Amino acid sequence: MAWFTRKKQDDGVAAVEAPVEEEPRLPEPPQLDASGLRSVADHLAYLQSLVEPLRPFGMSLLEAWDQVMCEDIDSMINVPPNSTAKIAGYAVRAADLVDDEGHLAPPLEIVDLDVERLPVGGAATVAPGDVLPRGATAVLPATFGTVEDGRVRLIERVSDGEYVRAAGEHLRFGTRLLSEGDVLDDRGIGLLASAGIDKVMVRPRPRVVVVSSGEHLVEPGPSVQHGEVSDANSYMVAAAAKAAGATVFRVAVHSNEPDAIREAITDQLIRADLVISTTGGRREDYEAVVDVMSELGLVDSVNVAMSPGRTQTFGLIGEDRVPMLMLPGNPVSAYVSFHAFARPLIRALMGVRAEHRPVRAIAAQGMRSHRGQLHLLRGRVTMEGSIRHVTQVSEPYALAELAGANALIVLDEHSEVVNAGEAVKVWLLDEDE
Amino acid sequence: MAWFTRKKQDDGVAAVEAPVEEEPRLPEPPQLDASGLRSVADHLAYLQSLVEPLRPFGMSLLEAWDQVMCEDIDSMINVPPNSTAKIAGYAVRAADLVDDEGHLAPPLEIVDLDVERLPVGGAATVAPGDVLPRGATAVLPATFGTVEDGRVRLIERVSDGEYVRAAGEHLRFGTRLLSEGDVLDDRGIGLLASAGIDKVMVRPRPRVVVVSSGEHLVEPGPSVQHGEVSDANSYMVAAAAKAAGATVFRVAVHSNEPDAIREAITDQLIRADLVISTTGGRREDYEAVVDVMSELGLVDSVNVAMSPGRTQTFGLIGEDRVPMLMLPGNPVSAYVSFHAFARPLIRALMGVRAEHRPVRAIAAQGMRSHRGQLHLLRGRVTMEGSIRHVTQVSEPYALAELAGANALIVLDEHSEVVNAGEAVKVWLLDEDE
Repeated sequence: MAWFTRKKQDDGVAAVEAPVEEEPRLPEPPQLDASGLRSVADHLAYLQSLVEPLRPFGMSLLEAWDQVMCEDIDSMINVPPNSTAKIAGYAVRAADLVDDEGHLAPPLEIVDLDVERLPVGGAATVAPGDVLPRGATAVLPATFGTVEDGRVRLIERVSDGEYVRAAGEHLRFGTRLLSEGDVLDDRGIGLLASAGIDKVMVRPRPRVVVVSSGEHLVEPGPSVQHGEVSDANSYMVAAAAKAAGATVFRVAVHSNEPDAIREAITDQLIRADLVISTTGGRREDYEAVVDVMSELGLVDSVNVAMSPGRTQTFGLIGEDRVPMLMLPGNPVSAYVSFHAFARPLIRALMGVRAEHRPVRAIAAQGMRSHRGQLHLLRGRVTMEGSIRHVTQVSEPYALAELAGANALIVLDEHSEVVNAGEAVKVWLLDEDE
Repeated sequence: MAWFTRKKQDDGVAAVEAPVEEEPRLPEPPQLDASGLRSVADHLAYLQSLVEPLRPFGMSLLEAWDQVMCEDIDSMINVPPNSTAKIAGYAVRAADLVDDEGHLAPPLEIVDLDVERLPVGGAATVAPGDVLPRGATAVLPATFGTVEDGRVRLIERVSDGEYVRAAGEHLRFGTRLLSEGDVLDDRGIGLLASAGIDKVMVRPRPRVVVVSSGEHLVEPGPSVQHGEVSDANSYMVAAAAKAAGATVFRVAVHSNEPDAIREAITDQLIRADLVISTTGGRREDYEAVVDVMSELGLVDSVNVAMSPGRTQTFGLIGEDRVPMLMLPGNPVSAYVSFHAFARPLIRALMGVRAEHRPVRAIAAQGMRSHRGQLHLLRGRVTMEGSIRHVTQVSEPYALAELAGANALIVLDEHSEVVNAGEAVKVWLLDEDE
């Protein structure tokens, strides 16, 4: 990762000057807007520029299911593997059947079908389905010749390929089957297996470690005391990371002690392709984590033109510069930020082009937004015939609101009012619809 | 499973007759139509009647992600857990503030805030955020009384709940959160965790064993010989079963020997919730498996009014009557049959209502079907704006055709011709669109 290593001194002039020990830092971040905010698109692009896809490795077909191919794959075999006779007769070289003047050639010598390679001027007796010897280019039907003294006297001729079921007729050796970047689905697996391929290079599932901190948080259970909050964010985000295709580990420290948080994070760096931090909703929970991140790595803290989810912190942590995303403490902000930034990063690690893919739905009610910010409202999409409709979900209890939603309604920086019946963009939250 | 145990002899008359040892058999199958075919809907309903959902068991929240809940779940806690003061003053019972005539009551006695339960006529001094003692129903603001001799003389009154942030204000103990049959998604996990729940009863992922047989099949590799076919069906179907949510084991015997097939199947029954058989395309491959199934269990072989995928065989195999579905040998027929019958059975084992969920798309071209049969054409769905369009995919090589498709176009028993621009039903093959 070249941006935090010092540039080599290439030219003689620079080399004689004393090398300046620059502090490693993140590359220049995007410009802020007039309100001091970074746009969602800029922030996502910046984070993506700091994360590289995981190194691919070879996996068996079934292990590789639903993962992203890192190579173009061509057929290893011909299907069918050999050229065979469609009819009883003689395997021949079609060119042997005519002389230089274009007349029928003299009789061909009958050779054994097991011959390594059909000699020039030879003919091998074949039954339907028999594999042709190498060198043969056609089958001369038995009725196109007569046998005399171990030779075939020609009555008619055939051209290359006639009466032959050719090797590779269904699938030819070398045919491009799947390309780099394709997700390997069940039909793709069938196609590769049929083409003799049992292993492919894919990017592994990213290992995401969700670190939960915040001293008032407790593990879910029936005995939550005054001042305690049952930790929901880390469970929700861990499940969301699973849904995004990651292998997920969840670690809870439930403390704001710098030592405890530092230890939890550094212990996990060895197995993490991405660390995601969740906390409770208190300001001090958030700051405790940001302080540790700043101490362990290179950190970008910024206000993003997004609601909810304005406060965003990202870092490259530890010697290996492991990406770490800190989600806001409010459950709705955390979940929305996950979809805006963490999910695309997980997909980027997998080598999937990590764009938000909105679909359109008809707004069932009026909705309001503020110009200059991306609003992500909680919505419920229903189908009426083949048309998606979306209603805004709003509940006093944040986690009930999220549980009632199946989409995020995306009102972009340019929108202020959406009227009922107008189309809006939504991000669907569940894979199967 | 009651249908293959002998009926009890309930009435005296029958009891005196010699008991007839009836062969166990499957329940009466649905009627065939005039062409001797069983409708797809009838066949699916029949198979579903022979399969029971798996027994639920308790799993931690993250393990249970994306599985089907087998219980209604209510909140275990109040959020917040305790009622607290919103303002500095006195925790009181509002009923103590007025006498029988509705006038302000005599002064209240100040008691310690740590009191187990607020005594009648008592008042406990509270700061904002303090937990109210049990029995207190309101907070009397400090300005609503004066303190004299350890007593609060009342100036104004308050009603129940005033100046109190009530326990359960966000989420009340006992509130229904999720219901049996719901799929546990990430937001649901967040909601449950916030409500003190760390474990839920779900149905486990079904264990599907794919048994591949057929003596001309070989494992995928670069050296397929004449007469051999690289085994694609079992890989494709195993991946499709994964996509349907199953835990999948693939076993290949690549033989038509009854002993080998019998051993492969019976070895797997111990770990299988469903066995799926795949073969090559030859008739003898298929018959070899049906023969073994008939020997090991109760079998239903029928022609279904479906194209492709007309030949269907299902059985309840071994002492435990493990469901086993045999797919046709042709790759397209196998894959289509998987979606028509195996996927719904896997979903039924998971306790998901196992219907086909077609969506509508605009046919980009004319299509033809035969009245009286359900046709499942291979299609490619693309989005134009928010509208799905579908083109028929047709390739000489069956596995390339499947790999080029992302949908099955469903032309039902009543349709003969679909014109370009008309809406057709499609089953989408990929979870995420």
